[in-house]
Amino acid sequence: MSSSVFDHPFLSGLFGDDDIAACFAWDADLRAMLIFEAALAKVQGEMDIIPAESAADIEKCCARFQPDLTELKRAVATDGVVVPELIGQLRRAIGGTSAAHVHFGATSQDVIDTSLMLRLKPVCEIFVERLSRLIETMEELERRFGDNRLMAHTRMQAAIPIHVCDRLRAWLEPLLRHRERLAVLSKTALAVQFGGAAGTLEKFNNAGPTLRAALAAELALADQPQWHSQRDRIAEFAGLFSLITGSLGKFGQDIALLALAGDEIELAGGGGSSVMPHKQNPVAAETLVALARFNAVQLSGMHQALVHEQERSGAAWTLEWMLLPQMVGATAAALRLAQETAGNIRRLGVPPET
Amino acid sequence: MSSSVFDHPFLSGLFGDDDIAACFAWDADLRAMLIFEAALAKVQGEMDIIPAESAADIEKCCARFQPDLTELKRAVATDGVVVPELIGQLRRAIGGTSAAHVHFGATSQDVIDTSLMLRLKPVCEIFVERLSRLIETMEELERRFGDNRLMAHTRMQAAIPIHVCDRLRAWLEPLLRHRERLAVLSKTALAVQFGGAAGTLEKFNNAGPTLRAALAAELALADQPQWHSQRDRIAEFAGLFSLITGSLGKFGQDIALLALAGDEIELAGGGGSSVMPHKQNPVAAETLVALARFNAVQLSGMHQALVHEQERSGAAWTLEWMLLPQMVGATAAALRLAQETAGNIRRLGVPPET
Amino acid sequence: MSSSVFDHPFLSGLFGDDDIAACFAWDADLRAMLIFEAALAKVQGEMDIIPAESAADIEKCCARFQPDLTELKRAVATDGVVVPELIGQLRRAIGGTSAAHVHFGATSQDVIDTSLMLRLKPVCEIFVERLSRLIETMEELERRFGDNRLMAHTRMQAAIPIHVCDRLRAWLEPLLRHRERLAVLSKTALAVQFGGAAGTLEKFNNAGPTLRAALAAELALADQPQWHSQRDRIAEFAGLFSLITGSLGKFGQDIALLALAGDEIELAGGGGSSVMPHKQNPVAAETLVALARFNAVQLSGMHQALVHEQERSGAAWTLEWMLLPQMVGATAAALRLAQETAGNIRRLGVPPET
Amino acid sequence: MSSSVFDHPFLSGLFGDDDIAACFAWDADLRAMLIFEAALAKVQGEMDIIPAESAADIEKCCARFQPDLTELKRAVATDGVVVPELIGQLRRAIGGTSAAHVHFGATSQDVIDTSLMLRLKPVCEIFVERLSRLIETMEELERRFGDNRLMAHTRMQAAIPIHVCDRLRAWLEPLLRHRERLAVLSKTALAVQFGGAAGTLEKFNNAGPTLRAALAAELALADQPQWHSQRDRIAEFAGLFSLITGSLGKFGQDIALLALAGDEIELAGGGGSSVMPHKQNPVAAETLVALARFNAVQLSGMHQALVHEQERSGAAWTLEWMLLPQMVGATAAALRLAQETAGNIRRLGVPPET
Repeated sequence: MSSSVFDHPFLSGLFGDDDIAACFAWDADLRAMLIFEAALAKVQGEMDIIPAESAADIEKCCARFQPDLTELKRAVATDGVVVPELIGQLRRAIGGTSAAHVHFGATSQDVIDTSLMLRLKPVCEIFVERLSRLIETMEELERRFGDNRLMAHTRMQAAIPIHVCDRLRAWLEPLLRHRERLAVLSKTALAVQFGGAAGTLEKFNNAGPTLRAALAAELALADQPQWHSQRDRIAEFAGLFSLITGSLGKFGQDIALLALAGDEIELAGGGGSSVMPHKQNPVAAETLVALARFNAVQLSGMHQALVHEQERSGAAWTLEWMLLPQMVGATAAALRLAQETAGNIRRLGVPPET
Repeated sequence: MSSSVFDHPFLSGLFGDDDIAACFAWDADLRAMLIFEAALAKVQGEMDIIPAESAADIEKCCARFQPDLTELKRAVATDGVVVPELIGQLRRAIGGTSAAHVHFGATSQDVIDTSLMLRLKPVCEIFVERLSRLIETMEELERRFGDNRLMAHTRMQAAIPIHVCDRLRAWLEPLLRHRERLAVLSKTALAVQFGGAAGTLEKFNNAGPTLRAALAAELALADQPQWHSQRDRIAEFAGLFSLITGSLGKFGQDIALLALAGDEIELAGGGGSSVMPHKQNPVAAETLVALARFNAVQLSGMHQALVHEQERSGAAWTLEWMLLPQMVGATAAALRLAQETAGNIRRLGVPPET
Repeated sequence: MSSSVFDHPFLSGLFGDDDIAACFAWDADLRAMLIFEAALAKVQGEMDIIPAESAADIEKCCARFQPDLTELKRAVATDGVVVPELIGQLRRAIGGTSAAHVHFGATSQDVIDTSLMLRLKPVCEIFVERLSRLIETMEELERRFGDNRLMAHTRMQAAIPIHVCDRLRAWLEPLLRHRERLAVLSKTALAVQFGGAAGTLEKFNNAGPTLRAALAAELALADQPQWHSQRDRIAEFAGLFSLITGSLGKFGQDIALLALAGDEIELAGGGGSSVMPHKQNPVAAETLVALARFNAVQLSGMHQALVHEQERSGAAWTLEWMLLPQMVGATAAALRLAQETAGNIRRLGVPPET
Repeated sequence: MSSSVFDHPFLSGLFGDDDIAACFAWDADLRAMLIFEAALAKVQGEMDIIPAESAADIEKCCARFQPDLTELKRAVATDGVVVPELIGQLRRAIGGTSAAHVHFGATSQDVIDTSLMLRLKPVCEIFVERLSRLIETMEELERRFGDNRLMAHTRMQAAIPIHVCDRLRAWLEPLLRHRERLAVLSKTALAVQFGGAAGTLEKFNNAGPTLRAALAAELALADQPQWHSQRDRIAEFAGLFSLITGSLGKFGQDIALLALAGDEIELAGGGGSSVMPHKQNPVAAETLVALARFNAVQLSGMHQALVHEQERSGAAWTLEWMLLPQMVGATAAALRLAQETAGNIRRLGVPPET
């Protein structure tokens, strides 16, 4: 239905992002689910929980398995999750005695939540990288235009003259903090989810925690007790994404206001109008504002999903699926458009000698 | 990137909707834009604003024109809207002297907002139809089980015995009101948007209103003065969609609670678990709750977009694009899942003789 | 704790509203609850459901009863609602055999929801009146300045010259629609809530609907079947309030942008700065934007509260209490500040001869 | 108007909090503003920026000054902030030559934002303390009932038996993380705001940063460059408050569901009904859900306010004032009600021997 601007056939020109799609889209999701199953089999094989040959069979099959999408879609309609059908397909592909050892002691949520973490990891790396590049571009703008004069505005009124560097610091400093926040959160919150049917790893007796630690290590995720109904880390990621788009929305709003007045900025790359060829619309700047407001809206839903009743809430969990991927997409788009906008600034402020 | 569950390769099994996609998706959008351009040319030809032959050329071309999506996407990246490039392609396809008469006196927003209205129209019809069918199913449940006993619950505690018909009325009556609201809103709020560059139809002198009325008639939309920066009707549609999903979310939550207690409902069609084959998960009921919360979240953004500054706000308008199509998708999914859930009820309450 | 700006000792200078407070504040709430109990006793007396003398006793006592606030507050801490304690106090005040006939067949939600409706009624009247006055002021501005030139702005860029009347229509027309929406909604949605413990009026056998109709007539509210778990009308009021503040937020944003550029508006009454005496801050205009965004936020919660499970959801209902009164306050403030802003416009646009 | 439940004459029985009111309410706000002015004068006196005797005069006056609330309220109506009038009153109270040295080089936002930080500090301490106490209570529950059996529920269906300790860890572990988050945030984000008219401390030449550091030290806040248009730290506090209420909302929802089923919990202290004396309503548990949803809603607005244009946005800043104090109130109420609920648990789960 192309309901999302992020993977829309033409609106994705403005909102889409190939880098993020490669590590976060539906096929990356399925791939990450299979990586989870392969890693689970591997460490279970090493710990003699399942036969070593079965582990090898499962790993080999997961590496190349192509699920039948039509059947996955059909099954999601009744199961509400893709995992039972995916495991069924995988088992049939593996066949023999090894089939029964697939997904041993795990549950759907282990697969889906860990897949999310496996995919958030490169997303965070990309975001750190883009923040760094944007910071560099703004520092370069500071070197070039920092001493230029700019009229400060408070409450939408001219206040007193400041320098361009003053405004640039207001754009730049939150980005430094966001990069630091991303670094901290990536270290603590990208954790494996592994709990089994109700979070107790009841199939493994006392070996559960050791198995989970090995699984985490294999997947290069943090080892944490199961968190299937504790969604605070997920909400924290969402909050950080919205902090990023919020700060970039302020940057976009400032650029649009500068472009409106016109005398303190020269900006390349504006968009065309279908009827007014003289106009140079600050499209990217305005889109930054839209993306900030969009994420601020979605964040509310991610916090509603904290009310995750009992051991697994289909309602709260499903709500996350509807919101978080788009928050990732919006954050990616905002970082790209902010970079584009910053790169398009030809002049900022008024040179001191004029 | 498959960021949206509504057109996701496998999650769409639960959330997708072919009927709605056919009348609301990106290709329906392009088609509706071309219908707008054809109708505009037609009425302008009839009013001798453009040559009759040009009008015929434009109409003919619009009927079969296949835009180059790659170029549309490329252009959206800078223009922020698809229309300038679409018109450019259309003009090249028409060629000759007629090309210059395409889109005469119109602006991007006229095309995009009218396309939205042209597509909301069948959406509303589908929603009315689905509401009617759901109402019938619930009335049938009332006939079959209305006299059964049910324990009323207030504040999550057993209160006093009531009858099934009492609970059914609480599910049913809001649906009757929503159907009425949809009927009223469809009549008044599905209006053509036609204002030109800044809303004044300045290319047509005094003929503007007559032209707009003819255009509205041609498109079978209501004739209203341009509303490009007055988004209250759009927000009203969004509010009604969220009222619908909210009421269905209450239904879903009630069903899930009945299924939890287990003695007052028999429900077919539950979802399977990857590890607990004995379970019958009320997947559709839980998804109704998720969809209600989702639309309640998005609605906030649609109301943020009411702050639509000056004659056209790129920021506020773009925000609508990110939200409204998904609200349509969520409402469609909720109506379908509610129908499925109501249809799966094998027994409700406890027969009086037991 | 003065957490709300609407009744804050000093911020209420900007946000408060004596007219609304008089008909909607906590004491008006208690008064309306007593009016409900008096009316209930009266019609029950007339229908011989309770003794006529008891009805008279109850009516008389309700008219002058001053509840013990300290005890009410103490009771709310455990009961979550004020009604059980209020009824207890009322019964003790009435004493004798009449005491037992107070609140007969009613429940807390009947009292609280009907009190809300009794108070929303004058609120809607005040809003209609303020909308009318604002419409008049804008029409007067149109008469005075409508032919002045104004530069249209699309996507935050100068587009083409328009006239002041064009901009004024964009401010004015949504207000006309809001007034109409309020009129319609006031007629249909201001309904008595009367259902008893679980909505079935089980204490009255077949006389329930007749009693409810008489109660509605006595209270001058619409007669509707109980709607204790059907919150769509409440959400509809919230949506309309947010439509109003949203349109006024657009007006405020436009005024602030005009004031920023400075040449197309003369505005009296700006706010002072603590350090820049030359500034005239468009405080009311900016506050209109804040109020629009505030209501857009709260509306999301009112729609979350549509998921009102079973016969009475303490969670969903309580959430409404936290949100709706503030939406009323924000709408009142916005109407007042918009009136003030419109009244402060000394010139709009540039006279044609200049 | 008593629009807020947190300081409502009777609803505050459920929602109010004297401890928080003492450090966060309007009078604490005025007090903190005067503390800011006193500290500013003190360090300016020490640095010979203003005469030492004037500094002493200002400090002395601030310590005992009682503002005229009526005039403050009147002034806020036009200025949109309380500071200009407050400074005016303060100057008149000080009189003589010292009057002119009050508030030197500062601006309204310095006063208001720093007051917020001064008041958030004890709030965070109270929250840490309450979290600690709640953690202890839950650990005690774990010691007493941890080995009891509990039926796990996934997707609102009985799944497999677990132990009470499993459920308790799901309640407890997020609280441990929240306490840690609060500790980290309190250390880094409670920063003085001091920038002057447009953030440049232009009145102090090169002495600005030294003065700001001295002011921060005097106020026991972190020293950070001015952040008047960088609201990420404020939004981060809001996000953390909503994480806390979200986790407590999950606890409340779980308790309400346990109380609904009835066999796995014994809970004291339920609320009464006005008509069903047999009921024990889990009022506190339901209120926890309402508070979680409330904060999730408000958070959206706090992130909208990140789009804080130019050097000071009246719109975005005012929006924060409308939202953050209530989020503080909701978090305080949730921590108190969760403590009450946990303390009311008489039994959890089913003892293993039964």
